[in-house]
Amino acid sequence: MEKPGRWYFESLTHDLIVGSILEEIVYSGRTRYQDVQILRLSGFGLCLVLDGKTQSSELDEYIYHEALVHPALVMHHGPKLVFIGGGGEGATLREVLRHPGVEKAVMVDLDREVVEICRRYLPRHHRGAFDDPRAELVFGDARAYLADTGDTFDVIVLDLADPIEGGPAYLLYTREFYQTALARLNPGGLLVTQAGSTSPVNHTEAFTPIASTMASVFPSVLSYTVFVPAFGGPWGFVIGTTDRAVEPLSADTVDGLLRKRLVEELRFYDGITHHGMFALPTYLRAGIQAETRVATDQDPVFVV
Amino acid sequence: MEKPGRWYFESLTHDLIVGSILEEIVYSGRTRYQDVQILRLSGFGLCLVLDGKTQSSELDEYIYHEALVHPALVMHHGPKLVFIGGGGEGATLREVLRHPGVEKAVMVDLDREVVEICRRYLPRHHRGAFDDPRAELVFGDARAYLADTGDTFDVIVLDLADPIEGGPAYLLYTREFYQTALARLNPGGLLVTQAGSTSPVNHTEAFTPIASTMASVFPSVLSYTVFVPAFGGPWGFVIGTTDRAVEPLSADTVDGLLRKRLVEELRFYDGITHHGMFALPTYLRAGIQAETRVATDQDPVFVV
Amino acid sequence: MEKPGRWYFESLTHDLIVGSILEEIVYSGRTRYQDVQILRLSGFGLCLVLDGKTQSSELDEYIYHEALVHPALVMHHGPKLVFIGGGGEGATLREVLRHPGVEKAVMVDLDREVVEICRRYLPRHHRGAFDDPRAELVFGDARAYLADTGDTFDVIVLDLADPIEGGPAYLLYTREFYQTALARLNPGGLLVTQAGSTSPVNHTEAFTPIASTMASVFPSVLSYTVFVPAFGGPWGFVIGTTDRAVEPLSADTVDGLLRKRLVEELRFYDGITHHGMFALPTYLRAGIQAETRVATDQDPVFVV
Amino acid sequence: MEKPGRWYFESLTHDLIVGSILEEIVYSGRTRYQDVQILRLSGFGLCLVLDGKTQSSELDEYIYHEALVHPALVMHHGPKLVFIGGGGEGATLREVLRHPGVEKAVMVDLDREVVEICRRYLPRHHRGAFDDPRAELVFGDARAYLADTGDTFDVIVLDLADPIEGGPAYLLYTREFYQTALARLNPGGLLVTQAGSTSPVNHTEAFTPIASTMASVFPSVLSYTVFVPAFGGPWGFVIGTTDRAVEPLSADTVDGLLRKRLVEELRFYDGITHHGMFALPTYLRAGIQAETRVATDQDPVFVV
Repeated sequence: MEKPGRWYFESLTHDLIVGSILEEIVYSGRTRYQDVQILRLSGFGLCLVLDGKTQSSELDEYIYHEALVHPALVMHHGPKLVFIGGGGEGATLREVLRHPGVEKAVMVDLDREVVEICRRYLPRHHRGAFDDPRAELVFGDARAYLADTGDTFDVIVLDLADPIEGGPAYLLYTREFYQTALARLNPGGLLVTQAGSTSPVNHTEAFTPIASTMASVFPSVLSYTVFVPAFGGPWGFVIGTTDRAVEPLSADTVDGLLRKRLVEELRFYDGITHHGMFALPTYLRAGIQAETRVATDQDPVFVV
Repeated sequence: MEKPGRWYFESLTHDLIVGSILEEIVYSGRTRYQDVQILRLSGFGLCLVLDGKTQSSELDEYIYHEALVHPALVMHHGPKLVFIGGGGEGATLREVLRHPGVEKAVMVDLDREVVEICRRYLPRHHRGAFDDPRAELVFGDARAYLADTGDTFDVIVLDLADPIEGGPAYLLYTREFYQTALARLNPGGLLVTQAGSTSPVNHTEAFTPIASTMASVFPSVLSYTVFVPAFGGPWGFVIGTTDRAVEPLSADTVDGLLRKRLVEELRFYDGITHHGMFALPTYLRAGIQAETRVATDQDPVFVV
Repeated sequence: MEKPGRWYFESLTHDLIVGSILEEIVYSGRTRYQDVQILRLSGFGLCLVLDGKTQSSELDEYIYHEALVHPALVMHHGPKLVFIGGGGEGATLREVLRHPGVEKAVMVDLDREVVEICRRYLPRHHRGAFDDPRAELVFGDARAYLADTGDTFDVIVLDLADPIEGGPAYLLYTREFYQTALARLNPGGLLVTQAGSTSPVNHTEAFTPIASTMASVFPSVLSYTVFVPAFGGPWGFVIGTTDRAVEPLSADTVDGLLRKRLVEELRFYDGITHHGMFALPTYLRAGIQAETRVATDQDPVFVV
Repeated sequence: MEKPGRWYFESLTHDLIVGSILEEIVYSGRTRYQDVQILRLSGFGLCLVLDGKTQSSELDEYIYHEALVHPALVMHHGPKLVFIGGGGEGATLREVLRHPGVEKAVMVDLDREVVEICRRYLPRHHRGAFDDPRAELVFGDARAYLADTGDTFDVIVLDLADPIEGGPAYLLYTREFYQTALARLNPGGLLVTQAGSTSPVNHTEAFTPIASTMASVFPSVLSYTVFVPAFGGPWGFVIGTTDRAVEPLSADTVDGLLRKRLVEELRFYDGITHHGMFALPTYLRAGIQAETRVATDQDPVFVV
C-alpha cells in the first residue's frame, strides 16, 4: 500500500485484489436483497457497491453506461420503446433518455431501497433521469415483468449485478430468460447485457458463457469490450439481435447517426471508440469460439 | 483481501493498489542500477519486477511484447536491421527475431545483471532468443549507443522502464533522445516505445506527454493501447515514423503481411486486434490533443 | 486479510502493520495542529486517531487511562491539585476526578478543536468530565503553561501524542521540560507520562529514552507497562518523583487505598494488576539500564 | 501499509489482521497434517507458520519458550522426567534440557515432516537439542502415547497448535485428555500448556475455557501471561498441579532456584518476570472466574 490509513479492497479474482483510499462512507446498509454501500474513493469519487462489488464510480460511470446503452440504440434503426432491467443508479436510464426518439423507457429494478439510496446520494449519476416523463419506474423482477407483460420493446438493456450464486441476478443470464426477452422484442429489436470481466485472467468466468448462451437463443450475437477503471479491468457486453444479418457500422456511420439523433455530444462513445470496442483481441475471440457452456435455469453459470 | 497469507502489492497510482497472492520469491536483489525481483504470483506465474514495478508476467507477457514489436515491424515495408533499447527479459528480442526478414537485432540494455537474471530464471520469456546468431547483445546506455554508432536501423523498439525520477530510463523519453534516435533511422524507418498507462486515472502521467514529445520530433506519430493484466490496466505505445504520410493498415492487410512474413501464427496480434489497439477511446484522443508538455533533458516528465 | 472491504491500517513500525475492519468514519478533518479522525472499528468501537496514530478506543481506553492515572495518584499520599497535559478525549480527566480528594484538575491541551470533537463524538470517553466544577480546561501549550504559572501541583499527568518529528508534542519529552515540570511539583509530588511502546520490537524507540531522560531529572523514576489492544502491543509509562526513596506498594496496600479513596471500583486497575504492571520483563529492565540517550530541546528523541 | 511490496498477513481475529514485510519464503509446503511455511519476516527473522498461524519467530521465540517451560520446571521440586507434547521446532526441548537435573525428555510430535523441516531450516530454534542423549523423539499422537505408556512424568509440557476445528490438536485441550495426562504425572507433578491469546479482544476464545477445563480436572490450576510480538498480543499459559496447595514463589525464590539449577542465565525468565507473568490483569481474572465452559471430546472448544 502506498501508505496506511483507510482503504477499500475488492477482489477481482480469488488471488487478485484492488485497493483504493477510502475517503468517506456515505451510506452502508443492507436491503431486503443485498448489501449496499455508497463510498467515496480517492480518484474515483462516489461509488455504488452492491454485495462487495463496485457497480459504478463517478470517475468513469460515463464509460460504462455509454458503452452499455449507445451501441445497441445506434444499431437500431429508430428505437422508441426501451426496457431496462436493473440499472439502480439511474445512469442507464439517463443515457437511454438522451435519445430524443425514445418515447418510453420502462426500468424494472428489483430493489426499491437501492434505487432510493442512489436517487438520494448519487445525483451526478442519474441527473434527474427518474423525473423524465418518458421514464416509467417499476420495482420488481425484470424477468417476471417481461414474462407477464403484453408490451414489446425495440431495445432491452440489461444493467444487472453479476451472476453470483444466491445473488439477485443470476436467473437473468440463462437461456430461458433470453428466450423470454427475445419474445418481447419488436422486429429489428436488440437486447444488450453487461457481461462481466473480459480480462485474460477471468474472461471465461462470465463473459464467454454469456456470449455462448445468447448465441443459443438470438439469431445473431455481437460482443464488445471496454476498459472500466472502477472494475479493475476491461468489461464485456453482448448484443443479441432479432435479425440474422447485422452489418457492422463504420466509424463514420456511427458518428453520423449520433449527430443526427442526439442533441449533445457524448463523452465516451463515438465512431472510433465503437470500432475499438468491437475489435476484440484474439484471446476473446478464441475464448468465445471455444466456449461450449450454455447457462440454463437448472444449470446456471456463476461468478465466484 | 480474499484471505490472509503472502501477498505482493504494487501501487498503480498514489491512491490505487493491486495485490496478488505471492507463491514464490525466486530472486530478490539489487543490481548497480535497480532493485530486481523475480516473483511467482498466483494467476500470473513468473514476473520480473524492477524498482517495485512489474515489467512482465508469464501469463500475459505475450500480449505486451507482441503489441510492442509487431505493429511497427508490420508497418515497415521490410525491416532488416532492428535496434532494441532495454528489453532485459529477452522477450522483445524474441518477437523481433520471429521475423525471418530481420537480419540483425542489436539489443542495448544498461543492466547486465538484470539480463543475466532473466536469462537464468525466465526461460519461458526469452526462449533462447539470446542465442540466435542474428542477436547482438550490448550492455550500456541505449542513448549513448545511438549517439555514437555509425549504424542506422529500420526499426527502433524501446522496451524501457517507466520514466521514474532518479531511475535509469527517464532520459530515453526526451525530445533530445528522440532526435538522436530519428537520426539513426533509415528512410521509411519507425521507432516504437512503450508509453505507460492509458487508464483514465493516469493517462496524462506518461502517455500523453510521450506522445506529445514524439510529435515534436517525428514527422508522424501513431498511438495505440492494449490491456495488460499484469500492469493492472491498459497500456500505451507510440510509434514515430520517418515519413509524413502513414496509411492505416486494414485488418486484412495486417493478416496478409503476418501470413507472408512470419512462419508461425502469433498468440495475440492479428488484424482485428491491430484495429482494436489503434482505435483509441475518446478520452485518449482528447488527452493527446490537449497535451502541451514536451519532455526535454532539462525538463523531463516523470511518473510518480 | 480476513476478507476484502473497508479496512483501517496503522503502522506499528516501518515493517509491521495492523488492520481493522472499518465500520464508520464518524469524523475526518484537520485542525490547526494535526489530522483528526474518529473511526468506528470493528471490535474496538469508536477510536480517536491523531496524525494516523490511534490514541484510544472504546474497547480498551479504560485500560490505558486507568493505567496512566491511578498508579501515580495512589502512590501520592493525598493528591488535591492535579495537572493534565494533553488528554483531549477527557478520559484522563475523568479518571483523575474519580478521586474525590482531588480538589482541582487543570487540563491544558493545545488543540481546542480536538477537544471539541472528542466532547461531541466520544461521550463514552469523557462521560461528562469536562462539566465537573473541579475541572479547569485551558487551551494552550502545556509546557508554556507550566513555565509561566505560579501554581504548583501534587501530580502531573502527561497524556500526550508520541514524540513525532514536526508533531505537537516532542518538546514535552525533553530534559528541559521535565526540569520545568519538576519545579511545579509540590513536595511528595509525582509526574507520570505515557511513554510509548514497550514491545521488544521497538521499546528503545521512545520508552527507554524517556525513562532515561526522566532519570536525569527526577530523584527517583519508576517504569511500568500494560498491554493495550488498540495500540497493537504493550505500552509504557514512567513516573518521576520528587522524593528519592519510593517504597513499592504491596497489592494489599493498593487495594486498601483504592477502597478508601474511591467511591466505585475500577475496571482495570487493582493491587494485583499494579504488581503485574510494575514487574517489568527482563528485556525492559535491561533496555532501561543500557539506555544512555537523554532527550534535550536541542537533541530530542523522535518516534518514526 | 508502510509501503507496497511483499507482505505476510495473519488474522488475529475475524476483524483484526497483522502484516509484516516478507523477506524470504524459505519453505512452503503441505505435510500429511498441515500447511507449513518457514518465512523470514522483517523484524522477526525466521518464523514457523502452521496452517496460517505463526508458531514462533527468531526474534522472540525465547520469550514464548522460556515462559512455557521454566515456570513449571521451577515450581517442581526437582524434575527428572519430562514429557513434551508437540514442540516441533525443538525449542521447548531445548529449554527443558537446559535443566541439568532432567534425565529424560520424551517429545511426541504428530508431524515428522514438520520436525524435519524445523531441524533443517531453524537451527537457531533447536540449537542441537534433538541430538542431546537425554532427548527421545517420538512421532505420533501425544494423547495416544500418554494413554498407552506405562511411564510417568514429573512435568508435562504441551506446546501445541491452537485448538482449530479440523486441526491436529483440538483433542489435546479436552477434559478427557487432561484426565489421561494427570494419570501420567508423578506425585508433585505439573502439567503446563500453551493456552492461546489473552488479549481483551479474544481471551475468552481459548484461554478461559482451557483454564476452566483444566480446573475441572486438576487439584490446582495457575494461569499466567506474557506478551509475544510474533503472536500480535499477550499469550496465556495454564499450569495444572497434582497437589492441591501450590504456594506462590517469591521473585527471590525463583532467582535462587534458577541460579542453583541452571548453568547459564536465561534471556527472558527470572524472578521479577515470573511475578509480572502471574499477576494477571483484572479482566483475565474476571474472565477465568466467569468461564463456565468445559471442553470435552464431544463438545470441544475451537479457536476461529
